[in-house]
Amino acid sequence: MRSLISIMDFSVDELDDLIHTAMDIIDRPHEYSQKCRGKKLATLFFEPSTRTRLSFEAAMYELGGNVIGFSEAGSSSAAKGESVADTAKVISCYADIIAMRHPMEGAPLVASDNATIPVINAGDGGHNHPTQTLADLLTIYREKGRLGNLTIGLCGDLKYGRTVHSLIEAMSRYEGIKIVLISPDELRLPGYVKKEILDRHHIPFEEISSLEEAMSKLDILYMTRIQRERFSNMEEYKRLKDSYILTPEKLKSAKEDMCILHPLPRVNEISVAVDKDPRACYFKQALNGKYMRMALILKLLEDAACSPVRKTRDMQTVKNLRCQNPRCITSAEQELEHIFKRTDEGICRCIYCEKKAE
Amino acid sequence: MRSLISIMDFSVDELDDLIHTAMDIIDRPHEYSQKCRGKKLATLFFEPSTRTRLSFEAAMYELGGNVIGFSEAGSSSAAKGESVADTAKVISCYADIIAMRHPMEGAPLVASDNATIPVINAGDGGHNHPTQTLADLLTIYREKGRLGNLTIGLCGDLKYGRTVHSLIEAMSRYEGIKIVLISPDELRLPGYVKKEILDRHHIPFEEISSLEEAMSKLDILYMTRIQRERFSNMEEYKRLKDSYILTPEKLKSAKEDMCILHPLPRVNEISVAVDKDPRACYFKQALNGKYMRMALILKLLEDAACSPVRKTRDMQTVKNLRCQNPRCITSAEQELEHIFKRTDEGICRCIYCEKKAE
Amino acid sequence: MRSLISIMDFSVDELDDLIHTAMDIIDRPHEYSQKCRGKKLATLFFEPSTRTRLSFEAAMYELGGNVIGFSEAGSSSAAKGESVADTAKVISCYADIIAMRHPMEGAPLVASDNATIPVINAGDGGHNHPTQTLADLLTIYREKGRLGNLTIGLCGDLKYGRTVHSLIEAMSRYEGIKIVLISPDELRLPGYVKKEILDRHHIPFEEISSLEEAMSKLDILYMTRIQRERFSNMEEYKRLKDSYILTPEKLKSAKEDMCILHPLPRVNEISVAVDKDPRACYFKQALNGKYMRMALILKLLEDAACSPVRKTRDMQTVKNLRCQNPRCITSAEQELEHIFKRTDEGICRCIYCEKKAE
Repeated sequence: MRSLISIMDFSVDELDDLIHTAMDIIDRPHEYSQKCRGKKLATLFFEPSTRTRLSFEAAMYELGGNVIGFSEAGSSSAAKGESVADTAKVISCYADIIAMRHPMEGAPLVASDNATIPVINAGDGGHNHPTQTLADLLTIYREKGRLGNLTIGLCGDLKYGRTVHSLIEAMSRYEGIKIVLISPDELRLPGYVKKEILDRHHIPFEEISSLEEAMSKLDILYMTRIQRERFSNMEEYKRLKDSYILTPEKLKSAKEDMCILHPLPRVNEISVAVDKDPRACYFKQALNGKYMRMALILKLLEDAACSPVRKTRDMQTVKNLRCQNPRCITSAEQELEHIFKRTDEGICRCIYCEKKAE
Repeated sequence: MRSLISIMDFSVDELDDLIHTAMDIIDRPHEYSQKCRGKKLATLFFEPSTRTRLSFEAAMYELGGNVIGFSEAGSSSAAKGESVADTAKVISCYADIIAMRHPMEGAPLVASDNATIPVINAGDGGHNHPTQTLADLLTIYREKGRLGNLTIGLCGDLKYGRTVHSLIEAMSRYEGIKIVLISPDELRLPGYVKKEILDRHHIPFEEISSLEEAMSKLDILYMTRIQRERFSNMEEYKRLKDSYILTPEKLKSAKEDMCILHPLPRVNEISVAVDKDPRACYFKQALNGKYMRMALILKLLEDAACSPVRKTRDMQTVKNLRCQNPRCITSAEQELEHIFKRTDEGICRCIYCEKKAE
Repeated sequence: MRSLISIMDFSVDELDDLIHTAMDIIDRPHEYSQKCRGKKLATLFFEPSTRTRLSFEAAMYELGGNVIGFSEAGSSSAAKGESVADTAKVISCYADIIAMRHPMEGAPLVASDNATIPVINAGDGGHNHPTQTLADLLTIYREKGRLGNLTIGLCGDLKYGRTVHSLIEAMSRYEGIKIVLISPDELRLPGYVKKEILDRHHIPFEEISSLEEAMSKLDILYMTRIQRERFSNMEEYKRLKDSYILTPEKLKSAKEDMCILHPLPRVNEISVAVDKDPRACYFKQALNGKYMRMALILKLLEDAACSPVRKTRDMQTVKNLRCQNPRCITSAEQELEHIFKRTDEGICRCIYCEKKAE
């Protein structure tokens, strides 16, 4: 039995298989319309997210299955103090697969360690959101016909944007990738992502603060939102914000076949006027997310049917450290052992939130 | 492709067709139990309404389809500032038809202008609620055997009651309709409804403040709730409220085959003792609402299958005006153009909330 | 037509039948997977309860049916002041069976008196929770092979724990039952339960304050949570709480085939270390709850199909008294008549909340 907690849980070959399945679903939807008949997906959303939740639910229904769940913590037993581990054990009695969103980093990993059914991470705080990356990958593949040999611009909040980090991690395994990081100084990509992902995979990258300057060389432009709350200096925010809003004007220098992505929801970082541009792919991306979730649910249920025993962790672990991250599930979950993994670089990271040991 | 935003979007013939379909569903439910197999209804309720939402969901399930959605804005992406237009575009990737309730007037019209699937207005603030009117029409048809030649009493809050305005608008297109308006002075029917609907269609009407006085002549009595908040003068409210509560006593002078309607939920404007009276039809009305929603979903999905392109607006529009209504979706939706229509009387009305241009 | 409001609504024979059906569902799930095709369960949860709600929903889906409903009062028409009676009447138009959780004691009985479909009480305040008791009974039956000749320890909050009272009531009808009541003085079993259930059925019982002392003689240990709020004296609470936490250490003196139950959610009253003990049956109990709910839904729908008329109350009632319990539905529901039943002991109890008349 497998779960999907981080996009890196899947090899490049496995991702290729998922994309292949998704393409087949798009071609022959009727072949898949009864594949999950009698199966149930539990959508456990401890914080609200319409788009992601409805995408999962639509995916399950299009496979002929059913859905149970909740859409916010207030209507769950968590309000009564139940642990994530117990919730996972109980839901395993009711459903065949879980999609979990949780505000605490690492909560879906705790769930997958305790559930007797596969768990999909549908977003854990600012940490991972692998099914968004699946949507991104299928969109790039469908629009560009390939996942390698691409210059990818990432624009906006590169510091806190979990979708950006996951996409970089996923793309770094393909050939011929170049990365252009476009952000204000305050919101630059964190050093550890540059070091542990980009440098390690020898991905050439440059850091630019001007979207217009970067535009002409990009095959992919991945936009994200710059949140006012991220700035300590309001004048700085006001000075900067407009330069990271995508407009038809700014698109003039872009390649004709550039592909504009956005994880959505957007607020105003892409002008509505851009929607009509054929390069705008963010609504297609939402659709592709549904197809990838269908492929993922199928894959995990098939895996669980073949090998019902949970895969054991194959990593070097360290147990005498304590995670200090207040947003990590270790700070909230009852009787949860703190466990660290030792990376190839010799760094100890909490297995739940991946923060470095202090 | 069609949507249902206002009851006036459908001609009398189209309404007759819907009623005909609903009657057939009642007679032969099994013939319809798989009509929407593999289809999904999205119930997007930006404000709660159990009755309407569950009625839509029951309708879709009885057609063999599935349902996704949310029941309040708090668990939707709107909380993150997403526009109605974007929500409509994204949900179009996940579902086949939308039922939307929204606190802002005109929001479902914005949705239908952006969705690639049909949109049903399930209530937009104090503006429209056309599927309630569909329930009213089927109930009148089933109870009286006709939709013309009826004297209809409307009692209670005629000023703010959107269901009252829609019913008047719908009934004004049938022959031989007489209207009796029963309300306190504070809550009289607005002048524009009298002028633009009743006068225009030459519907005879009278205004009375006594329910008992009106009772004996009515074929239909449509009750609504008088809300305390509507009164500036509490003594006036206390003096008046009991006269608009329907009791077995007040029913003594009513016709034996009069039909009592209420959009529900009721608080205390109809005494529970009236429920046993055979003239009480408000719970039948709830059941009829489900059948009409089934007929409506079928009709809109069939239309969308035949002509997948959105119908264009065929009206004379004016674009250099700004809507001043704070409850209109124009006041909240990002980059939404203000558009007005010029009515036959030469008045300019916002196409979203139908308020007059100032 | 029958409803399930209290576990005592079913005879021992009927409970045996339910257990028999549940066992058959476990053996041959495919035989049941279409039994409720085209039927709808309405889950009306006026207060949140993930576990119970999802268990009902899973049960209905595994029978091939569908589910509509809400998971908290805020998204229901109750927020607009609708009575439970009206809600029940309207939902009867949309669904085939209701599962209702409500904070007011007796609300599900009001619903069953007004619905035209069966109603299942899924918890009414601190009063009844019969489907939890169904889960308890099936678990005891599956683990011990019998429901009689058992020594049952009940530990923790025996004063307010509705699941404890219901289980005692249910077990008191079997042969050879002995009860061991384990609690701090503040949280002892109420006198009326001892008198009206234990004494009346000649069930031997003892009251002990030490879990360790009781341990060795138990066939069943039913744990419940001790809530801090129940104590007026915080020092007393701190002194006591650890003695009612079940640990591997305390289990050393227990029988090898003892069966540990807990209605869940647990907070910390059972150490996570106990989960691995083969005597820990609380997660099995959650699974058994689903099977019993399946059996119950089937039974009530079959009953309703055979005899669609509501069963009349066969009890001696008294009507000139008023219930003084502020948590009783009589204190909130519009125009609800106060009715009392005279028990065999000559005591008058409110039929809704079962509080004694003052």
